Amino acid sequence: MALVVQKFGGTSVADADRIREVADHVARCRRRGDQVVLVVSAMGKETDELLRIANEVSKSQPGREMDLLITAGERKACALVAMALNDANVPSASFTGSQAGFNTDSNHRNAKIVEVNPTRIREAIDNGMVPIVAGSQGVSPEKDVTFLGRGGSDTTAVALAHALEADACELYTDVSGVFTTDPRVVSDARKMPTISFDELLEMTAVGCPKPVMRSVEVAQRFRVPLHVRSAFTWEPGTWVVEEDPTMEEAIVKAVVPDTSEAKVTVIGVPDQPGIAAGMFRSLADAGVNVDMIVQNVSLEGRTDISFTCPHDEAEEAAKICETTSGEDCEVHTDTEVGRVSLVGAGMKSNPGVAAKMFETLAAANINIEMISTSAIRISCVVRSADVDNATQALHDAFDLATA
Amino acid sequence: MALVVQKFGGTSVADADRIREVADHVARCRRRGDQVVLVVSAMGKETDELLRIANEVSKSQPGREMDLLITAGERKACALVAMALNDANVPSASFTGSQAGFNTDSNHRNAKIVEVNPTRIREAIDNGMVPIVAGSQGVSPEKDVTFLGRGGSDTTAVALAHALEADACELYTDVSGVFTTDPRVVSDARKMPTISFDELLEMTAVGCPKPVMRSVEVAQRFRVPLHVRSAFTWEPGTWVVEEDPTMEEAIVKAVVPDTSEAKVTVIGVPDQPGIAAGMFRSLADAGVNVDMIVQNVSLEGRTDISFTCPHDEAEEAAKICETTSGEDCEVHTDTEVGRVSLVGAGMKSNPGVAAKMFETLAAANINIEMISTSAIRISCVVRSADVDNATQALHDAFDLATA
Repeated sequence: MALVVQKFGGTSVADADRIREVADHVARCRRRGDQVVLVVSAMGKETDELLRIANEVSKSQPGREMDLLITAGERKACALVAMALNDANVPSASFTGSQAGFNTDSNHRNAKIVEVNPTRIREAIDNGMVPIVAGSQGVSPEKDVTFLGRGGSDTTAVALAHALEADACELYTDVSGVFTTDPRVVSDARKMPTISFDELLEMTAVGCPKPVMRSVEVAQRFRVPLHVRSAFTWEPGTWVVEEDPTMEEAIVKAVVPDTSEAKVTVIGVPDQPGIAAGMFRSLADAGVNVDMIVQNVSLEGRTDISFTCPHDEAEEAAKICETTSGEDCEVHTDTEVGRVSLVGAGMKSNPGVAAKMFETLAAANINIEMISTSAIRISCVVRSADVDNATQALHDAFDLATA
Repeated sequence: MALVVQKFGGTSVADADRIREVADHVARCRRRGDQVVLVVSAMGKETDELLRIANEVSKSQPGREMDLLITAGERKACALVAMALNDANVPSASFTGSQAGFNTDSNHRNAKIVEVNPTRIREAIDNGMVPIVAGSQGVSPEKDVTFLGRGGSDTTAVALAHALEADACELYTDVSGVFTTDPRVVSDARKMPTISFDELLEMTAVGCPKPVMRSVEVAQRFRVPLHVRSAFTWEPGTWVVEEDPTMEEAIVKAVVPDTSEAKVTVIGVPDQPGIAAGMFRSLADAGVNVDMIVQNVSLEGRTDISFTCPHDEAEEAAKICETTSGEDCEVHTDTEVGRVSLVGAGMKSNPGVAAKMFETLAAANINIEMISTSAIRISCVVRSADVDNATQALHDAFDLATA
């Protein structure tokens, strides 16, 4: 008998039919002998809808009030799933973040979990019930409702699985697992049966949409076995596990395409200590999510700095650079860029991977504009129009379609 | 400087514009020097919408889960009003039922308030803030969310006004006060500047729609001055107060038409102790809201009993009567009835009122089918088609259009 925390995302509980499917699935798991704890997100586009009405009503949107507003979505989904389970003859009870023992800091909109004391959840399990926990929420030391941020339900599920010493945390979503690349781009993309935490973190860092990075970090820290799988086909998905010896053979595991970022280039930055630091400090203070940063070789006391950031932050980022980079600098913003990344733990000890990547792109007549690497990842910025071709070419070159 | 609890109903916070109007009104009250505490209902048809999705998802709808679901509506409205106040430069903070100190029993769907400990609300007032309390909700001894029932926000407001020893409780709604009769039926219906608790209770008991009876009872018990007024015109409304000496002159205060009930008649009930009692016990156990009851004079050991109940409960009521009233009884259901009632504290010592009422209806050629009286009310059941004419005739006969 295993204890499993199952998290259902917004699309998995989007309407009455989907909620009943979740209830049927839980009933099947119980018949198989598993103990199940659920974590649910808000239904479908509910969170977007709550943000829309907040925008209609208010310009200021204080964090404390936004958190009360937004968390209503998960509570609603939670209550409805509990009702559907009741109809399916599965004894169950809903729990808000506070009731489930999620104590957080007071950082509204993006609260961090301080401690999980799931006393009531344990009691419910011991009484043979399925507890259903509202995702992405908790209570602050001031006894105010807090929201863990968009995608916080994944983190709720992982933290709860850790606190309950669960055997696994299953993240149910609208994809059936983690793929060698985006199946919409490459038709022979292959679902991987396992992937390491490090690899998945690198993949999410460069644009792989699921699961949410923060939850993978928490899972890795506490060694919570994650299973990313589909709430539509219910087939086995991808297990996220610690790196294991058998993985050494696979050099490259996945190709991740991403067109969500723009490139900002600052030309002629004085090559003096503190100038670049001041610029990136200002960008951080303004909340710009700077990702790749590349600095070219310094020539005549001046250097060029390029970085990427989300499309909708590029304009503000460019303005900040203009005011902080010094008088003689030029700032260019380019929204027609894309990024393609190779990820794989085996790359650490295989220096030939970068060379093969560059050769493959050259053979496909694709120009590389920026390069950045980590121990288990290489990313190239190219024209956005070239991203799909680059992805297909790399997927072929590294034989990712065959296990 | 007065401390005022202001309750805003669903239509008063139905959309972003209305929410901003509420914020502007509160800002005006503050400039005038008042301390304001708000209680808000769910927006517009939100509660109906939550019930609709619950019906779509579940047949069983356990009370505990329904309460978590439904209370999301008031929380959402509460957060949005707080944001709008912030935009209007009024310092404010939202509070859920639990945060506001509403301790209830565990009777889900229709929880009763056990105690109100508004420590956080007092602190907020002392800090110069406008606290905004989510209506119709509290927390049970088991630390579960409870719902006070439809219309429970009025009760929240009155109970809070009592706990805070507020100077007044203002119930903002879509009508501008309490009228001498329904203004949609009688064009010269007059808004009353004051009415007594007893009179208002009798009026709501016979179909006057606002405010909710339970809240008036609580207000009367704790002597909380109520002000029923409009959130659309913002004009002064009707004060509900304890009976005062000046009221003795007004004999009849209002005519209340009502077509929401049906009549069930049981003919030939054995006139023995316990038969009628058993019938009404069965009706009560089935949740039928029996209102007027009339029993005719007993003839040859048998009697006829008629009662009214809401239209949608009449069919079930008739069935119950058939099985509990004895073999030789006949049960008739009549849905084409209506009721017209006179209400006024002065009627106690004016026996001529009933006679004048019957004469007025006779002169208008309206047949009376049932009569019931209390110390300050007389109700007549007539054909539903006659209700409007009866209302107009009585409003004229008792000179209610002139103060």
